[in-house]
Amino acid sequence: MTSSVDFFQVIEERRSVKAYDASHKMNKEDIVDLLEVTQKAPSSWNLQQWKFFVIDEQDQKDKLLSIAYGQKQVVESSVTIAILGDLEANKNAEIIYGEALAQGRISSEIKDRLVGQINGAYSNAQVARDEAFLNASLAGMQLMLAARAKGYDTCPMGGFNKQAFVEQFEIPSRYVPVMLVVVGKAAKPGYPSSRFSIDDVTVWNQF
Amino acid sequence: MTSSVDFFQVIEERRSVKAYDASHKMNKEDIVDLLEVTQKAPSSWNLQQWKFFVIDEQDQKDKLLSIAYGQKQVVESSVTIAILGDLEANKNAEIIYGEALAQGRISSEIKDRLVGQINGAYSNAQVARDEAFLNASLAGMQLMLAARAKGYDTCPMGGFNKQAFVEQFEIPSRYVPVMLVVVGKAAKPGYPSSRFSIDDVTVWNQF
Repeated sequence: MTSSVDFFQVIEERRSVKAYDASHKMNKEDIVDLLEVTQKAPSSWNLQQWKFFVIDEQDQKDKLLSIAYGQKQVVESSVTIAILGDLEANKNAEIIYGEALAQGRISSEIKDRLVGQINGAYSNAQVARDEAFLNASLAGMQLMLAARAKGYDTCPMGGFNKQAFVEQFEIPSRYVPVMLVVVGKAAKPGYPSSRFSIDDVTVWNQF
Repeated sequence: MTSSVDFFQVIEERRSVKAYDASHKMNKEDIVDLLEVTQKAPSSWNLQQWKFFVIDEQDQKDKLLSIAYGQKQVVESSVTIAILGDLEANKNAEIIYGEALAQGRISSEIKDRLVGQINGAYSNAQVARDEAFLNASLAGMQLMLAARAKGYDTCPMGGFNKQAFVEQFEIPSRYVPVMLVVVGKAAKPGYPSSRFSIDDVTVWNQF
């Protein structure tokens, strides 16, 4: 089981790590444990607009290398978890609210209203895409922190050929690649990167 | 200072809370402390594509109520932090990589290459928008967890009139509202919500 680890230490220690111990393996159970924590992230209407495409087999990692412009962390880390955003997450609404209705947690009127509201929102392709990026990224952040809490290092990667990724791995059109997160054991530590001051990124009550 | 709190307990205890103790106030220092933790989130090219629009004055909260379709958590919570995504975050590249150059951390060739790459990516409006949603949401997740770790409750809200929000608060066109996060002390506990199984949301190595 998981031992106790301080939240703020996890925040401080999470760095974007680029060099990994290629001999370190994570087994399926380790990865599932990580996704179980990730999956507790919130999402719009609880539709869980994410799909985890796990790449941990050597031949699939090798295919990813050129797609990621030769960035070696995709082959040297233990696993790459591609976080895909679900562009048709409204299809989950019947499942989620149907279950809530069956369990007596909501009325059929509320279920119908929610499903109608969701389908209305998803009829706008830009809204669907925004929701895919938003919610997949909530999961992405939770994944990176959970990995650090379990003693792993990570690097989020947006720098890859998304078109080639979709073609190579035959990603269904329902999903859009949002980010890759590599997970493993650091071979070299990550460096703290600079940040703007809070004054630079905050506006109080009015622009 | 911050006392120790277990990471996994924070994950478990973070719930979307809708009922708040309206008498609980957070002072500016409390809010800045929270944003300091939030600000450690990673971002694409370290451009920090987020802006925190903090609404904690009563008259501004009152204006938010109808924009949020009457959802009372925006007036009863201690503060609403609107997380805006920066559609023109490429403008940060000169600042960030100029500083890195000045400190001798990168060469001028690397700086120029990065700034060029970033400006190229941002010339595509959809990429700029995707990056705004992605990175603002990384900050949003970190904010919600940091708040729980500091003893507060939160609720992420996407259900608000974005057009009215932009007009009412005169949000510059550089920014897109991504989500509201209300922060405060729960008056009633949040409920755990259901999740899909890991099998439902995971694909291993190939679709």
